[in-house]
Amino acid sequence: MSNMTNEGKTIDPAAAEMLSKAASEKIETTWDRYEKQQPQCGFGELGVCCRNCLQGPCRINPFGEPKRGICGADADLIVTRNLLRTLVGGAACHVDHAFDACEQLLAVAEGNAPYEIKSAEKLSAIARKCGIPTDGKDEKSLAKEVALRALENFQNITEEPMNWISHSAPQERLDVWGKLGILPRNPDREMRVAMHQTSMGVDADPVNLLLACLKIGLVDGYAGLQIGTDIQDILFGVPSAVKTAANLGVLEKDKVNILVHGHVPAVSEKIVEWSRKLEGEAKAAGADGIMVAGICCSGNEVLMRQGIPLATNYLSQELAIVTGAVDAMVVDVQCIMPSLAQVAGCYHTKLITTMPIAKIPGAVHIPYTPERADEMGQEAVRTAIKAFAARDGRKVDIPAHKSEVWAGFSVETIVGALAKVDPADPLKPLIDNIKNGNILGAVGVVGCNNAKVKQDYITVEMVKDLLAENVLIVATGCTGHALAKYGFLSPEGAKKYAGSKLLAVLTAVGEAAGLGGPLPPVLHMGSCVDNSRIGDLLAALAGYLGVSISQLPAAASAPELQHEKAVSIGTWAATLGVFTHCGVAPQVLGSPVAVKVLTSDMEGLVGGKFYVEPDPHAAATGILAHIHKKRAALGI
Amino acid sequence: MSNMTNEGKTIDPAAAEMLSKAASEKIETTWDRYEKQQPQCGFGELGVCCRNCLQGPCRINPFGEPKRGICGADADLIVTRNLLRTLVGGAACHVDHAFDACEQLLAVAEGNAPYEIKSAEKLSAIARKCGIPTDGKDEKSLAKEVALRALENFQNITEEPMNWISHSAPQERLDVWGKLGILPRNPDREMRVAMHQTSMGVDADPVNLLLACLKIGLVDGYAGLQIGTDIQDILFGVPSAVKTAANLGVLEKDKVNILVHGHVPAVSEKIVEWSRKLEGEAKAAGADGIMVAGICCSGNEVLMRQGIPLATNYLSQELAIVTGAVDAMVVDVQCIMPSLAQVAGCYHTKLITTMPIAKIPGAVHIPYTPERADEMGQEAVRTAIKAFAARDGRKVDIPAHKSEVWAGFSVETIVGALAKVDPADPLKPLIDNIKNGNILGAVGVVGCNNAKVKQDYITVEMVKDLLAENVLIVATGCTGHALAKYGFLSPEGAKKYAGSKLLAVLTAVGEAAGLGGPLPPVLHMGSCVDNSRIGDLLAALAGYLGVSISQLPAAASAPELQHEKAVSIGTWAATLGVFTHCGVAPQVLGSPVAVKVLTSDMEGLVGGKFYVEPDPHAAATGILAHIHKKRAALGI
Repeated sequence: MSNMTNEGKTIDPAAAEMLSKAASEKIETTWDRYEKQQPQCGFGELGVCCRNCLQGPCRINPFGEPKRGICGADADLIVTRNLLRTLVGGAACHVDHAFDACEQLLAVAEGNAPYEIKSAEKLSAIARKCGIPTDGKDEKSLAKEVALRALENFQNITEEPMNWISHSAPQERLDVWGKLGILPRNPDREMRVAMHQTSMGVDADPVNLLLACLKIGLVDGYAGLQIGTDIQDILFGVPSAVKTAANLGVLEKDKVNILVHGHVPAVSEKIVEWSRKLEGEAKAAGADGIMVAGICCSGNEVLMRQGIPLATNYLSQELAIVTGAVDAMVVDVQCIMPSLAQVAGCYHTKLITTMPIAKIPGAVHIPYTPERADEMGQEAVRTAIKAFAARDGRKVDIPAHKSEVWAGFSVETIVGALAKVDPADPLKPLIDNIKNGNILGAVGVVGCNNAKVKQDYITVEMVKDLLAENVLIVATGCTGHALAKYGFLSPEGAKKYAGSKLLAVLTAVGEAAGLGGPLPPVLHMGSCVDNSRIGDLLAALAGYLGVSISQLPAAASAPELQHEKAVSIGTWAATLGVFTHCGVAPQVLGSPVAVKVLTSDMEGLVGGKFYVEPDPHAAATGILAHIHKKRAALGI
Repeated sequence: MSNMTNEGKTIDPAAAEMLSKAASEKIETTWDRYEKQQPQCGFGELGVCCRNCLQGPCRINPFGEPKRGICGADADLIVTRNLLRTLVGGAACHVDHAFDACEQLLAVAEGNAPYEIKSAEKLSAIARKCGIPTDGKDEKSLAKEVALRALENFQNITEEPMNWISHSAPQERLDVWGKLGILPRNPDREMRVAMHQTSMGVDADPVNLLLACLKIGLVDGYAGLQIGTDIQDILFGVPSAVKTAANLGVLEKDKVNILVHGHVPAVSEKIVEWSRKLEGEAKAAGADGIMVAGICCSGNEVLMRQGIPLATNYLSQELAIVTGAVDAMVVDVQCIMPSLAQVAGCYHTKLITTMPIAKIPGAVHIPYTPERADEMGQEAVRTAIKAFAARDGRKVDIPAHKSEVWAGFSVETIVGALAKVDPADPLKPLIDNIKNGNILGAVGVVGCNNAKVKQDYITVEMVKDLLAENVLIVATGCTGHALAKYGFLSPEGAKKYAGSKLLAVLTAVGEAAGLGGPLPPVLHMGSCVDNSRIGDLLAALAGYLGVSISQLPAAASAPELQHEKAVSIGTWAATLGVFTHCGVAPQVLGSPVAVKVLTSDMEGLVGGKFYVEPDPHAAATGILAHIHKKRAALGI
């Protein structure tokens, strides 16, 4: 079916096996569709195609005429308008996710939803951050106050910045952003304004549009990621160290296998809960029990908090079903291939949608709302148990591959481990080791897979290079998941990949923390929404040193970014002051102004900028050069 | 420069003259750029191009492979996702405009902005509509309450529908929409949700997406158009009948000519005000005075309320500058060609931008805020006066064409004229004449120009056919403007174009109203935002007859639609129950599901649907058939 060899598609041996099975069973996968899409439209790839009015589509020829669209928009204008809309698409995902989390917390506080407040400590911490007095308040009243404080962001009709950014970001950053006029007011208003600004005949100034891009990056960072993680930690608990496994080998032949896929822990937590409660029903149906495993960020959320194993990451989501061993895949929102319905249709697998804005023709829809979360969870798990009986054993082939995974590295977990070394001043051991060069720097490696890139390849090769140079890696999202599959999230991974100086630090901290060996060289900090944890960590380090985040020997990287969310997260990171690597170029290369501002000029404004490099080794070299430059500037 | 003859580009003789002048002066116009864009991308035209993630762009071959994008999205999914984003783009324009109007009213009520409340009557009427007691309240307190009530829509964090739709729409419609689950909550939230829903891997159900499209149509209709018009009428006055002129011949050789262009009356009203106040300065500079004329909806707003003449409509905006007689063009937001800076650069004309989200490189930026509206107005007018001195007389050529225009037909004006016939029951004469067939039906003809269509051609030819069949026309936007240029907005136009039965009614009402002749056969109801006036009129007629709006012998038409706003307004109209004609197909033809739902199935859900027909005579026939069908169903 496909002309590409499996080795050209993925470095994941489990995925490669399933690709062969898919081919022999004539199952179309995303790689087949990728090949059928070749050659892809060069105008679209450069960002110089405009479809913002019914006179178009218009496209700009980078080498000649036409240089302007029908309205007069040139390449710079078309690209920057398109980029701003991409960012709104990304930010809207996270903001909507965060808003839903606030609604869930409010419903729980008011006794209308069957969840507990798992972390009273985080509730107090967030209340304190918001300046809400906690004394003498019962948990539910305080939770209600916190939920309403977060929801106030969406009620703000003033010119004042949204409260959550003021509560969360370092003052130095707030000052920089305030001077540039990019502090978001009501996050929904900013997205509405951006859609207006990019419509036909409104903004014609690419630099003005790029400043709006930075603002939407902050909308994502603070109304999306930060509210999302803060509130979800209150509801579902602050992650702590867990040990489990990753890759398709976690599926169990004799168990009911349920995959959770998407992004919303309110859904996946209930699947985990009911899979435990209904274990007896599964056994009654002839299974050995129920195995829940995760894909994408739904997987990361329950990995971090429940130690649920990871099945596979974005690009191979169809291949999980191709094992023939998945009885149900429960999806919520984001990164869910519409093709899953076709693939599931070739097996006994039930594809279950749960969210009102994410239905798939051919799937079973079991509606989730905060109020009926238990009904949803029960129904979904029972649907899987029922499907198990229809499983065709001849089609089952579970790849043997799985890797040990340590995860749960919230900021609280990291600080907790460091506190075992220096209880009075937990950040000191980390800072000391950065200063003395045992830790050369830190890089957050985050994001997706992308069909344009051999699955996990850029991520793994770049991270190997960075670790060998004693750079500590933190990871989230499908990138964390990628690194999980190849052993980077295990103590063994430290021995295998970390430079000797870094290994010594990881070993010292790991042993002090009672792990009996080194910490993993890649600390998995969670879902894509959990990128706010990386922001919090950077802010803490910068605060400790009394410098701006942009002065830290740190970087971010999205080696295989795919989703609009990755672009908006990256924009937040760069605006936060972070040097931000992309292994796949966002669709902006057709605009000289966009390229210059994003990869150069914005550093002068906010301290961070983008860096595009598809070669993993070159990317590692570029990131290392940045880290060395920052170390030199700090005199360390 | 261009291969197309002027006769192929426009039916407007003034525009044709200026096209020749532009060609001889080597000025590039939108028609030149249109030709350079040929052939346009067929994938984009069909709506089957997806750029929603960095794996793409993907495109679907309507005649074979590929049938799916890399993620698995098929043509139906790609088209409906793109359409929903188009609608968000359109609705965002209007909602942002309306939000700004609320802010202006609030600032005025609090004494922070130099505007008056021009219509105490409308203020009371809107307060009553919202259930706000008016007794004993001073004007500013009441205005503040009304502004805050409107702004409450943007603070709604509940599942309740936005208040303005509940206040404004007929109960029958609210029931229909409620059952379909398309009643908008907070309008900004609905747009955020739609952006989320359309991002990669969220909704895969084209019907679910089309329902979301209807919801965003209602967001535009009630949070955009309705709030916008209601609040602007309070601030700037309810339009009443005015007489003026239209087309480039309104420019005056010996006066300072200022064009207002865009959509925001808070800007254009101040230009008009200061052009009157600074008349002396203009005379001191050697001019005979100051002429302000309008383009697009900024033009319509000051036409309706101030009797300001119309210069030209969307497609010929550049040609206004080509007269060489424009000293300044003051623009705000929407439908402003970025090319204006290049064209203005060939003359002495100052292009003045005013809004923070709409800057144009090469323009003078004179910032507007409600607080500094007077400073903006003064500075802009003085900039024009100064430019007048630099005008090069050799380049001046003002076409002699202009037409008489009667405008100002708000619902209040129409009802007022009818009240002269039957003071006790003003709608009765209208209803009676509809029943007896003197008025066969009514069509709202609205929208833009589009470079794909010979300027004004479809509009004018279709309206001629409809008027000849005794169909009353109401118009807004650049379509109202188009009809103005050819005399349809004058009593003479009634004699020339209206069927004899319609002419008799127009004459009876016109004479009763003291106009000394017939009403124009096309009643200009204002800007695109003022389409809510048409909705109010339809609701009043339906209410009077005790039927649903969908039962009326009425239709809407956007013969030459161009902007995303036209698509979202059209969606609102169809969802309101109106048969809605488009002379240019929205980019949905690649999806069988979208085409079927939008042009057929949605009639069963909401009573209205879309009808696409580019030929004006065929379109008139189709609309007439619809009107006859509705009359037959009503038994009239």
